[in-house]
Amino acid sequence: MPVLRRIPRLVTCADPVGQAELGEMRDAAVAWRHGVISWIGPDRALPADFAGETEFECDGGLVIPGLVDCHTHLAFGGWRADEFALRSRGATYQEIAAAGGGIRSTMRRTREATETELEARSRSFLEGMLRLGVTTVEAKSGYGLSLADELKLLRVYRTLDADGPVPVVPTLLAAHVVPPEYAADRRGYVDLVCGSIVPAAAAGGLARFCDVFVEEGAFTADEARRMLRAAASLGLRPKLHVDQLADGGGARLAAELGAISADHLEYTGEDGARALSAAGTVAVALPIASLYLRQPPMRARTFVDAGCAVAVATDFNPGSAPSWHLPLALTLACTMNGLTPAEALKGATRYAARAIGLEDSRGALEVGKRADLVVLDADSPDEWCYHFRPNAAREVFVGGSPVHDANLAATRA
Amino acid sequence: MPVLRRIPRLVTCADPVGQAELGEMRDAAVAWRHGVISWIGPDRALPADFAGETEFECDGGLVIPGLVDCHTHLAFGGWRADEFALRSRGATYQEIAAAGGGIRSTMRRTREATETELEARSRSFLEGMLRLGVTTVEAKSGYGLSLADELKLLRVYRTLDADGPVPVVPTLLAAHVVPPEYAADRRGYVDLVCGSIVPAAAAGGLARFCDVFVEEGAFTADEARRMLRAAASLGLRPKLHVDQLADGGGARLAAELGAISADHLEYTGEDGARALSAAGTVAVALPIASLYLRQPPMRARTFVDAGCAVAVATDFNPGSAPSWHLPLALTLACTMNGLTPAEALKGATRYAARAIGLEDSRGALEVGKRADLVVLDADSPDEWCYHFRPNAAREVFVGGSPVHDANLAATRA
Repeated sequence: MPVLRRIPRLVTCADPVGQAELGEMRDAAVAWRHGVISWIGPDRALPADFAGETEFECDGGLVIPGLVDCHTHLAFGGWRADEFALRSRGATYQEIAAAGGGIRSTMRRTREATETELEARSRSFLEGMLRLGVTTVEAKSGYGLSLADELKLLRVYRTLDADGPVPVVPTLLAAHVVPPEYAADRRGYVDLVCGSIVPAAAAGGLARFCDVFVEEGAFTADEARRMLRAAASLGLRPKLHVDQLADGGGARLAAELGAISADHLEYTGEDGARALSAAGTVAVALPIASLYLRQPPMRARTFVDAGCAVAVATDFNPGSAPSWHLPLALTLACTMNGLTPAEALKGATRYAARAIGLEDSRGALEVGKRADLVVLDADSPDEWCYHFRPNAAREVFVGGSPVHDANLAATRA
Repeated sequence: MPVLRRIPRLVTCADPVGQAELGEMRDAAVAWRHGVISWIGPDRALPADFAGETEFECDGGLVIPGLVDCHTHLAFGGWRADEFALRSRGATYQEIAAAGGGIRSTMRRTREATETELEARSRSFLEGMLRLGVTTVEAKSGYGLSLADELKLLRVYRTLDADGPVPVVPTLLAAHVVPPEYAADRRGYVDLVCGSIVPAAAAGGLARFCDVFVEEGAFTADEARRMLRAAASLGLRPKLHVDQLADGGGARLAAELGAISADHLEYTGEDGARALSAAGTVAVALPIASLYLRQPPMRARTFVDAGCAVAVATDFNPGSAPSWHLPLALTLACTMNGLTPAEALKGATRYAARAIGLEDSRGALEVGKRADLVVLDADSPDEWCYHFRPNAAREVFVGGSPVHDANLAATRA
């Protein structure tokens, strides 16, 4: 079986508790079979029967688990660079949305795009992400906002996931905003989500989670309750976008509904953090969105102190977070959200896997987990997050297969 | 002569005034001879005598002038990732400096490093910068803080500049902080700078500019006056680090001394901006430092409105800005400093060249200027700054030579 040898420093992220607990090994080796880790330990203790197979030489650097981006809006039509230029001069997200921009603008271009076009574009994003070390990606619908177009987006994710190599975990976000054709009939749209879109997504096995954007201009807490209960009854576990632009009690709502994650949380205070902690809901920090929207960042320290698991994700989308650069999000999590590099790393591996219900299979380097590994050109998590570079990943293994190929010496028996 | 053809969109940055004036051409071509632009215009108007030479095919994308990073601290020993982790938990730059960290910590490791070590390390940074499209780099000394060690850093820059391909423009920053051996004798250190370090740097032709860090904990305005006048009398034009951590009247000081640029300016208000405008001093925004230090960013709009030319640079250094990613600085200039993408681009090309006295030879695409060009995978400056990626440069020409080589189709006669 293949083995990665002579790893000077490796972090396992195997500890299920402790935001800063990375579990470190020195002079380690990792072996895998059929894409799953079968052995991990000190290099000198590698059993003899692993010899004679493909050996990759680490030769310096830091090995971490493959990164998990647990919050993206991967498939969409068009861009919104014009709005970025407006915001740089001081226009707010809400003003732009009120003028016909924002989510509804992307909705129009997403509806116009074919499934094939959306697929090709999303695939190019996934390729870029993978080269950075991102080996699993959650992806939300939410720019279709009709039965047909939401299912179109979810089918794109199904195809991308089936084609590999990066697993794509689909979330239904039909409740992103109310589409224009229902502007005078919000209840009608919520009915459509509950009665048609959610059941179709669930019946086709097209989504694992159901997400609702709870905010002024999007959906109310009561509407979210209706939709997420309908979804939960069909096996789609709740996620929530909450408290991004104001404290609307979203964290408590997420706790009440047993959401697997509550995302954004820029305006959430200690009470909300305690509620999430008690419910075992992962708190997801999205600093790229805070940067681009010039919003106060989520106070991650408050959540860590309350006992929450904090994940960090890109929120990649064409409006508020037009970058899929997860290592950038980690550096920002340190400079803006107050996480240490170790805490940020845990938040983009084990806790990110938890936020999408995949903690059993990835997000840590342990026997039985996927052989998703990143060889970083860095001495420590501190140095990696601190010395921001275009791409610090020297090699990435996804399900045991190397991505950069020529970057590590390999001997094959 | 070589020619880059079928450029869908090109910005020249040729206009000497107007922060947002980029000068756009569609369907353009650029030809050069011996690394200098000899023709630029509509592709269909390319003179016949340019045919038959090496032709590069642009095939989509946006062409901009090579980027100029007009403020870096390129050569230093060690890193300070530990301080980054401390700051993420709330420690301030000043607290870390008071505890023996900060500039003096890098000074110790820079003094220990050999010229060869510093050269190799800086060269690897320059290579990374060049691949992003950065074709000229200003580099400051300032981690030696003794006659021998400051000259060592300046010699490193001379070697790097001579070796190419990226021109390195050296600035003497002996007045970064007072070194520990002069802690009880500030005046003695200022005397050393004026009487020995500045004359030695000037006599050897080792520096073009002299820079002083004016701040609580660094140097006073009066000390800066003494050192910068001594430097100016020997042909080294002043630059200043001012108003980074508090408004110390640094912008007015820079104007008074006829500085070519005033850098940082996070706390500078309208009066200071007007003073810089009247003096023709370039205002240099350094948003990566604001991000890493969690400081309020320089209000670039105030400077543009006052009629200043605003440049944008990385401030690459191991403390407050440990990233040489200039396109990141441009995205941050839009999200943090309030520049539009067009304004930020002008600030990293023509105005950055002005900030280092090289506006005559680079920073714009015009006949007679260096053939430093970047082919970006973007439709517009807006899209480039907005859709942040590890590296959006598809090809970079430095002095007419391609860097990424295989990325554009080329035919050679």
